[in-house]
Amino acid sequence: MKWVYVEDIGKHVGEEVCIKGWVYHLRSIGKVCFVVVRDGTGIIQCVVTQADSPEAFAAFDSLTLETSCEVTGVVREDRRAPGGYELLTGSLKIVHRSEDYPITPKEHGIAFLMERRHLWLRSSRQNSILRIRAEVMRACRDYLDERGFVEVDAPILTPASVEGTTTLFETDYFGERAFLSQSGQLYNEAACMALGKVYCFGPTFRAEKCKTRRHLTEFWMLEPEIAFANLEDIFQVAEGLVCYIVERVLERHMRELENLGRDIARLEAIESPFVRITYDEALEILAQEGHRIEWGEDFGGDEETILSSAYEKPVFIHRYPVKAKAFYMQPDPENQELAMCTDMLAPEGYGEIIGGSERIHDLGLLERRLEEFGLPREPFEWYLDLRRYGSVPHAGFGLGIERTVAWICGIRHVREAIPFPRLIYRVYP
Amino acid sequence: MKWVYVEDIGKHVGEEVCIKGWVYHLRSIGKVCFVVVRDGTGIIQCVVTQADSPEAFAAFDSLTLETSCEVTGVVREDRRAPGGYELLTGSLKIVHRSEDYPITPKEHGIAFLMERRHLWLRSSRQNSILRIRAEVMRACRDYLDERGFVEVDAPILTPASVEGTTTLFETDYFGERAFLSQSGQLYNEAACMALGKVYCFGPTFRAEKCKTRRHLTEFWMLEPEIAFANLEDIFQVAEGLVCYIVERVLERHMRELENLGRDIARLEAIESPFVRITYDEALEILAQEGHRIEWGEDFGGDEETILSSAYEKPVFIHRYPVKAKAFYMQPDPENQELAMCTDMLAPEGYGEIIGGSERIHDLGLLERRLEEFGLPREPFEWYLDLRRYGSVPHAGFGLGIERTVAWICGIRHVREAIPFPRLIYRVYP
Repeated sequence: MKWVYVEDIGKHVGEEVCIKGWVYHLRSIGKVCFVVVRDGTGIIQCVVTQADSPEAFAAFDSLTLETSCEVTGVVREDRRAPGGYELLTGSLKIVHRSEDYPITPKEHGIAFLMERRHLWLRSSRQNSILRIRAEVMRACRDYLDERGFVEVDAPILTPASVEGTTTLFETDYFGERAFLSQSGQLYNEAACMALGKVYCFGPTFRAEKCKTRRHLTEFWMLEPEIAFANLEDIFQVAEGLVCYIVERVLERHMRELENLGRDIARLEAIESPFVRITYDEALEILAQEGHRIEWGEDFGGDEETILSSAYEKPVFIHRYPVKAKAFYMQPDPENQELAMCTDMLAPEGYGEIIGGSERIHDLGLLERRLEEFGLPREPFEWYLDLRRYGSVPHAGFGLGIERTVAWICGIRHVREAIPFPRLIYRVYP
Repeated sequence: MKWVYVEDIGKHVGEEVCIKGWVYHLRSIGKVCFVVVRDGTGIIQCVVTQADSPEAFAAFDSLTLETSCEVTGVVREDRRAPGGYELLTGSLKIVHRSEDYPITPKEHGIAFLMERRHLWLRSSRQNSILRIRAEVMRACRDYLDERGFVEVDAPILTPASVEGTTTLFETDYFGERAFLSQSGQLYNEAACMALGKVYCFGPTFRAEKCKTRRHLTEFWMLEPEIAFANLEDIFQVAEGLVCYIVERVLERHMRELENLGRDIARLEAIESPFVRITYDEALEILAQEGHRIEWGEDFGGDEETILSSAYEKPVFIHRYPVKAKAFYMQPDPENQELAMCTDMLAPEGYGEIIGGSERIHDLGLLERRLEEFGLPREPFEWYLDLRRYGSVPHAGFGLGIERTVAWICGIRHVREAIPFPRLIYRVYP
């Protein structure tokens, strides 16, 4: 008997096939029983009758949710069935009976679900989010690969920190101290001088004691870096990339977006050009909303929520004060107190999904900045080398995958945008 | 002036363009000077003459290797030039003068080069390896994506170890102990029961004090996992994947393979089917080569070298003794002392690039194995859950990216197959 996946079932109408999966839902109407089976690629209704499948009919009452099974039957098109097809069941073989499956259709608390994340992933909603997440990651790579970028992975174990030493996970590396990378950027800078246009894409780590809906301690980041590029190039690549991601998800995952109840029109509105405002203009908008912050401070979650709710599309905020940002950012030639940097905020209150900048390419200035920021020099010697041997202007940015997925899926907390979230009090399962 | 990359130079014959890059080589013949410039995407010879570019001609003697520059000129096709094109230079603007670039065409020791990995990447050889590495990774994803697999990332920070606790990097996770993942497999098993066919692809970590040419402490691994699959499925997916990877590299990176001096015929010979031998048969082959090992022991580097030199193509070795392998492997129904597992060894002495198996799906057996292997139960409770709620037979494997890249590129040590290698005494740069 031919084993087929539910996603391919439409190619087998009228044929007898075998579906392997798990009981997702059970109901009966009079003398017809329905066993709804999910196999990870879709769900299908298996129609069980006394006449066609007497053994399965007799066993129906003993079936339980998430019992694994192999069902054979003939595929029939039926518009009323979920997915548009159903299986006229011939036989139903139980592979393993599931007892007391803990996740039921009733509401569960988030702590309960997070503790059972390994099972929670089986729900239709989580399935949709994970499929969209995979598409977002694929779209990122496709966009850059098609434009000549080379994927060059940055290391995770590093001798130094990129954005300060207080928020690092540390490990003993055969007697030396090593830290889990917060960003692949510094390594990207070396790589872009070797290959022109590069990106890294991997997990990054922040040991921040943050308990907001936007923070994970372990999250994935896409980081492109381009030699001889400037802030304008960053605007263009970042905008093109985000439009492309949204377009790809709309094109290939409408079913999942609908399943998540996403307002599709909001996503369809995402197209070039995005608005660009300066940090100073952002302060004015915040002030108009009655929210005043000191010039020189970086924006936090509250400011991002206000600013990103002011636009229908993502918005670039550029030229933040140097002192609010990381040590490596190139100052604005027209005002040394400003950095040639930009953040992109996703709309609907989602906030920052991208941060990027021109990088300092002058050795002396970079040395001064390391001192000003109180960073140790030794672990950065190799990074300084990049300014000794054929230094060039260059720029890049990082896109946070989970924040982007949360925005596109319309989910409020990033913890559902990654298969196994790591949060301040969660490293299990 | 239009900035173009060297890889696109063929589209601009007869046009005046600007190349941005680094001085790679300098030579002069009488009154013609040649500045060979690399921009990461290729190298091009810029012809400098007194007549066409008097300023550049005058500055020629002061040029140094790795000086960054912008060269404008007219593109001309010339078969004798490296890459097939050259630039009739109009102007050459120095962006930043490089002094005493440490890596010269003369031979350097490996320690010297590893300490300067951030610069060493600029060499033509390392450029070729990194481009092939990116292609291998892309081919892995394409192969699985086209077959309905969903990328589901496994976490790096984990509460438990997959293959024993002695070889783990540990970190303090807000007061708890957490370990850097050695494999995403256990999480993949949860994910495949949610999505059917999945893979994870990320960095993995082994704190092994190994100083062989096959070991890194941080390496990338592709790990597919399939619900309702068995060892035969693993043979097929693994074989198809490896053929596809080699084919893609041959198709798109012949220039890089030639640059590395790879024996192309060896790669062209890689096609289905691969030989499959049992562990017992492998012991016989080893004995014939005068190399005896005790039944029950796993193979090490020496055994792999002998076995993988015996074939022109990758070879599967299957059904190793249970006690030689990890706790989670399903025993052979025909002989409980054997595991339903396989390793794939790459030819030419390269050794293991893939390890895979059926996974135990019976709760009782898995509980006994955890005990026999002396593993703590608590961090595996979630993993046991997968055998409580609709357990299914399933199987998967892991492919080591650096070993695969080393084999395809024909390089002897995996340290050159990753941008920033982490070895027992190396976590810098």
